[in-house]
Amino acid sequence: MRSVYLDNNATTRVDYEVVQAMLPFFTDQFGNPSSKHAFGSSVSAAVRKARRQVHALIGARCDYEIAFTSGGTESDNAAMLSALEVMSDRTEVVISSVEHPAVLTLCTHLERTRGVKVHKIPVDHHGRLNLDAYRAALTTRVAIVSIMWANNETGTIFPVVELAELAKGVGALFHTDATQAVGKIPVNLKSTAIDMLSLSGHKLHGPKGIGALYVKRGVRFHSLIKGGRQERGRRAGTENTPGIIGLGKAAELARKFMEDVNTRVKLLRDRLEHGILQRVPNAFVIGNSLERLPNTTNIAFENVEGDGLVHFLDRYGIACSSGSACASGLLEPSHVLKAMKIPHAAANGATRFSFSRENRDEDVDRVLEVISETVQKLRDVGRYGSWLGDIQAYMP
Amino acid sequence: MRSVYLDNNATTRVDYEVVQAMLPFFTDQFGNPSSKHAFGSSVSAAVRKARRQVHALIGARCDYEIAFTSGGTESDNAAMLSALEVMSDRTEVVISSVEHPAVLTLCTHLERTRGVKVHKIPVDHHGRLNLDAYRAALTTRVAIVSIMWANNETGTIFPVVELAELAKGVGALFHTDATQAVGKIPVNLKSTAIDMLSLSGHKLHGPKGIGALYVKRGVRFHSLIKGGRQERGRRAGTENTPGIIGLGKAAELARKFMEDVNTRVKLLRDRLEHGILQRVPNAFVIGNSLERLPNTTNIAFENVEGDGLVHFLDRYGIACSSGSACASGLLEPSHVLKAMKIPHAAANGATRFSFSRENRDEDVDRVLEVISETVQKLRDVGRYGSWLGDIQAYMP
Repeated sequence: MRSVYLDNNATTRVDYEVVQAMLPFFTDQFGNPSSKHAFGSSVSAAVRKARRQVHALIGARCDYEIAFTSGGTESDNAAMLSALEVMSDRTEVVISSVEHPAVLTLCTHLERTRGVKVHKIPVDHHGRLNLDAYRAALTTRVAIVSIMWANNETGTIFPVVELAELAKGVGALFHTDATQAVGKIPVNLKSTAIDMLSLSGHKLHGPKGIGALYVKRGVRFHSLIKGGRQERGRRAGTENTPGIIGLGKAAELARKFMEDVNTRVKLLRDRLEHGILQRVPNAFVIGNSLERLPNTTNIAFENVEGDGLVHFLDRYGIACSSGSACASGLLEPSHVLKAMKIPHAAANGATRFSFSRENRDEDVDRVLEVISETVQKLRDVGRYGSWLGDIQAYMP
Repeated sequence: MRSVYLDNNATTRVDYEVVQAMLPFFTDQFGNPSSKHAFGSSVSAAVRKARRQVHALIGARCDYEIAFTSGGTESDNAAMLSALEVMSDRTEVVISSVEHPAVLTLCTHLERTRGVKVHKIPVDHHGRLNLDAYRAALTTRVAIVSIMWANNETGTIFPVVELAELAKGVGALFHTDATQAVGKIPVNLKSTAIDMLSLSGHKLHGPKGIGALYVKRGVRFHSLIKGGRQERGRRAGTENTPGIIGLGKAAELARKFMEDVNTRVKLLRDRLEHGILQRVPNAFVIGNSLERLPNTTNIAFENVEGDGLVHFLDRYGIACSSGSACASGLLEPSHVLKAMKIPHAAANGATRFSFSRENRDEDVDRVLEVISETVQKLRDVGRYGSWLGDIQAYMP
């Protein structure tokens, strides 16, 4: 059975070219770039190249605006905590209600332990930010705004360039978690007011455990992880050189395949979406279909449990993900779907299919072949909270 | 020219078996362990195995005492910051004056920004901790003690098991940065009072960008990096699965080669040390020669600049490191050598040779072949601060 991987917003397969690029840095060029001998210096040059590759992908002004981190979550944490330190006279932050847990959990912690006031800007049922609420929250008390570039669950794209301009108006720093956007849509930071941006290697066919934080030239920054002077004092710890080289290569490849993702892959996504809506009654697309990542569709199947559907499709070799999670035996829609006020019966059946440049026509064919029958079976079972036993009988 | 790598305390070559173990997790088993489909679950099982391998290397009680991090520096930061949070009624910390920058820089920051009182316990000229000063600093105001298991520059081993017992006496948590000890000497945490321990993959022939923090069962812990619930809430962010698998394999191999490092490799180190002392006048070993890592020797060459010696040896294909760094044109001994009160003229010439299981007799032969002449040339140059031009003439 051929596997169909449609969970690329969770993580992506590392490109073979990326692995090839990384390999020498494990065993041959394994030196510590801080070392003063030949084992170190050859690695330093490769790290500089990787920094330029990442810088090119996001249209930064200069390569030293890029600091390598261990991933998107660390970058998000580092950006927000730095802002609160360097803007110590300001004690408020502005985020959206659909941010990634990396931002949300940190904010909850800051609220509880440091008395930081967190403005969570609501979204409408298409996932679009409430701009009036955003403008109202922006005052000179705000140290940092952190709004994601694109949402991981729905693919909805936020107008971060405009949002950053507004934040600038009150002197607040603007950070964006762009882990889902970078590599999927063109990003060009040069002419924007965006001060900081997080990205992650494993979302763009690079390795896990590596990411970057863009910090605009001139923006003051305090490192989250203290220690040695690596990354110009912005991130202590021996550099993850194979990871850095891998991320650099992945960035280069992402630029190369940008058009492919925004044309061919987008058409695959559209074909799947239309195909499902045609075949399955009482299903609809969640999120803003105009301003959306080219690779993502999140479809709500009414009176189906997303977890059950994921489980069923997995038996057919199809990997996707649900927008609900079973917490203590009760299915709960994700915070994103709750924020969008998607009706419970539909949100429970929300299922995300996320593509990458590795997907082919056959992947769409395969899902369309089985989706209608699978959803029907799940609906036939029809008893929430006790589907597992019944499902066994239907297992493909 | 055969390369001779004697800088294993800076970083080590990743073992081929480790690379082999990691490879499938880039391209085949690339799933996100949090995903509910087959791509995710097969990876989860491998991560569990790696956790057990690390747990076995350090003699932890159970595998969930191990949280994977991005490396030693992050682990150090996480341990200390957590301790100050969970022991919020205590505002003092105790460290040694020869800790790694990961601990020292963080402490300086905490002193400056949070008014934390930091007791830096001095060492004698052998690098041994002043136990009277240590006992005197231990009060019920101390939230955490952080003393390294072994020093990176000298290899001096601290009696952390006893130090942890003393800390326990005043109810303080005890953390040890064991990045240089784990994999080189047997570590068995089970019966100790050590609450937290940091280790790093790339110091034991594992990959860079991965490490672990041991947190003893029952010790309260607040994560440094907030976000998803990975690592049982102790470290947010998508797991670096290839790194984790690599660290697991490296831990398994480190156990296998433990005896080799403590017998054959130790003899190599001893032969180099004695050979140098025999051949080169006015050279002596820095640090406690009884309680010392089996792989490390730090030799002070009087009236030589360590940086110059490293540079010279590099031209012979020999990689080692100096205990001094050129800051703004003036050579300064490292904070470790300063804390040990090594005379300036000697400290400037401090050169560290650090072995691993990959070293062979020929490596020692090669250094002994060239060391005497090289040191003599550098002494002939004899003018501090202007050696570089003169050295060019002598370049091998």
